Amino acid sequence: MLTSDGAALAARKDLDILVELMGGIEPARSYIETALKNGVSVVTANKALIAHCGTELAQLAHEHSADLFYEAAVGGGIPILRALRTSLAGERIDRVMGIVNGTTNFILSKMTSEGSDYAEVLAEAQSLGYAEADPTADVEAFDAAAKVQILSSLAFGTELVGEEILREGITGVRWIDVEFATRAGYVIKLLGVAERVGEDGISRRAHPAMVPAEHPLASVHGAMNAVFVEGSVSGPLMWLGQGAGGRPTATAVLGDVLDAARNRISGRHDVPFSVDSTLHSVSAGDLPSAFYISLDVLDQPGVLAAVAGIFGKNNVSIKSMEQSGFGTEARLSFLTHEALTRDVHATIDDLSKLESVDSVGACIRVIEGGAR
Amino acid sequence: MLTSDGAALAARKDLDILVELMGGIEPARSYIETALKNGVSVVTANKALIAHCGTELAQLAHEHSADLFYEAAVGGGIPILRALRTSLAGERIDRVMGIVNGTTNFILSKMTSEGSDYAEVLAEAQSLGYAEADPTADVEAFDAAAKVQILSSLAFGTELVGEEILREGITGVRWIDVEFATRAGYVIKLLGVAERVGEDGISRRAHPAMVPAEHPLASVHGAMNAVFVEGSVSGPLMWLGQGAGGRPTATAVLGDVLDAARNRISGRHDVPFSVDSTLHSVSAGDLPSAFYISLDVLDQPGVLAAVAGIFGKNNVSIKSMEQSGFGTEARLSFLTHEALTRDVHATIDDLSKLESVDSVGACIRVIEGGAR
Repeated sequence: MLTSDGAALAARKDLDILVELMGGIEPARSYIETALKNGVSVVTANKALIAHCGTELAQLAHEHSADLFYEAAVGGGIPILRALRTSLAGERIDRVMGIVNGTTNFILSKMTSEGSDYAEVLAEAQSLGYAEADPTADVEAFDAAAKVQILSSLAFGTELVGEEILREGITGVRWIDVEFATRAGYVIKLLGVAERVGEDGISRRAHPAMVPAEHPLASVHGAMNAVFVEGSVSGPLMWLGQGAGGRPTATAVLGDVLDAARNRISGRHDVPFSVDSTLHSVSAGDLPSAFYISLDVLDQPGVLAAVAGIFGKNNVSIKSMEQSGFGTEARLSFLTHEALTRDVHATIDDLSKLESVDSVGACIRVIEGGAR
Repeated sequence: MLTSDGAALAARKDLDILVELMGGIEPARSYIETALKNGVSVVTANKALIAHCGTELAQLAHEHSADLFYEAAVGGGIPILRALRTSLAGERIDRVMGIVNGTTNFILSKMTSEGSDYAEVLAEAQSLGYAEADPTADVEAFDAAAKVQILSSLAFGTELVGEEILREGITGVRWIDVEFATRAGYVIKLLGVAERVGEDGISRRAHPAMVPAEHPLASVHGAMNAVFVEGSVSGPLMWLGQGAGGRPTATAVLGDVLDAARNRISGRHDVPFSVDSTLHSVSAGDLPSAFYISLDVLDQPGVLAAVAGIFGKNNVSIKSMEQSGFGTEARLSFLTHEALTRDVHATIDDLSKLESVDSVGACIRVIEGGAR
């Protein structure tokens, strides 16, 4: 039966499962609320909606003994949400890192393989239909951040909606950064990260990061997505697949429909994620990380000493340094040891005030450790 | 309560779930049968047992409305079996390829990274505890073949037990083959493969194969395991994780226990895999594949012409050839286009009868296509 009256369809009380693939907040939200209130299970691929009001919808589903599944909202055809809900339900997860945005992965992969600059590759991605005319949601990491919120709610029991999380886009990544990364044995990826910090801290964020070339995430190219989970007992696990597209998304939706149907037959429903109120968000400044920092400086005697002094004063320890000269200018590229983000930011502030420093070109987090 | 009387424990009728981690066929089998007959759900990590009598045990579980889960039997901590049972239940799967034996992956990875020969690396693996004193089950691919049977039963509905499947070990892989593979852009891996051939054919096998270096399976190193699934709608998907060890296995067991517990609470049980009787096993000879073939020949005029003639006579088309000379001897290394396995075997037979051919050193399948 074909209908153009979505509201009437959603209000039918004889439905078993409502599948919502409209996108956007309204009228999808109203339809889903109506269905859940009738005890109808809902399968949706609507990431924006879940990120906007997933907590309330999950609550509503639970109150009316219905299921709310949204596997397709993260990682397209990759069945990562069900794995977090079921196979890893007994696991203490330490960190989840994902390449969950195909557009930015396509752009960064192209910049790496072709040595092209960001603007050039973005234009190509737009002409190929891999990037929207207004690419903000992708390149400024809004999309990745929303997916981190969803992954984190299932991995750690953090709130699905609310709090802004740390978010940095890829528009500032230059090909010289990509080139430096390659030389140093890394690949630059836009990562969505949720991880435990200390006993009761959680950090959630989306930003470009230098990933060691031998890390499984480093070889996830083009529009592929991957989610890397570090469990304290399971060890490293990774899921890889197509992150977008009608067909992979359809697989995820169908998996959810089958799950909801099985539950319906046996008269049960899944308990949605439960919020662990003992956890608190770690502020960005408190987060320890290694960094890559690139400076354009005047090629004068004493500059390196002044720069190194500022790192030291702010408790940021330098792991390696590379200098390349261009006449009266030079570029200094640093890899730091792990330091508090606030100390690194203070270093950057101090550096930009130095007369011999023309500009701070890059400040990108470095992921340590592989998975061997 | 600690007990050393397993039989008495398994016979208790007040159990919800029996977890069997003893290994071996007996007494594990009797204990599990007793429990299932009492309607007790069973979680086991016992690959040998499932490969030996999984069909009967699954049938017994179903008859007594109990669950039989064995996630840990394939891929250690990787939750691939549950994904095949649930997330991909609605997917038409075309091919499953797995690196499912950590010992052989460790050996082949070491041969690749260090240029060492098989015997040397095996000895090292044995001294490190990665390989058993009698490594036959691993290096002759018995272990991988049993895991292919389990994966295939869930992916395609093939019989779990019975029929021998095609099995080739890694003992014949030489470092010159590994070296050639690297030069030609491949990595040699022991793969377990189950795939559709034509409309109603299934091929199941375990053998070394040359995998393109850019394929996600190529970067699965050391003792890591991975399962690569090609769905006709989902596209390529891969699961990666630690394939062995007490802790990853424990994660898989715990996931199964939680699943069985949820089912028990709602008074349901999972339907075990169902056999698709329309499928038939494709015989090894009928299987199309590209091959790498290496010959030691006398370095005489006319040898290549004679060898090429034999390939042609048997309908095996050569894609590329490399010749390296050693005084009066030479080595010819061929990559073929896709050909029927029986034609390739006939070629090998004919070649070994040529007076100018000293020996056929290698005949290894080549996997075509990546996942971009």
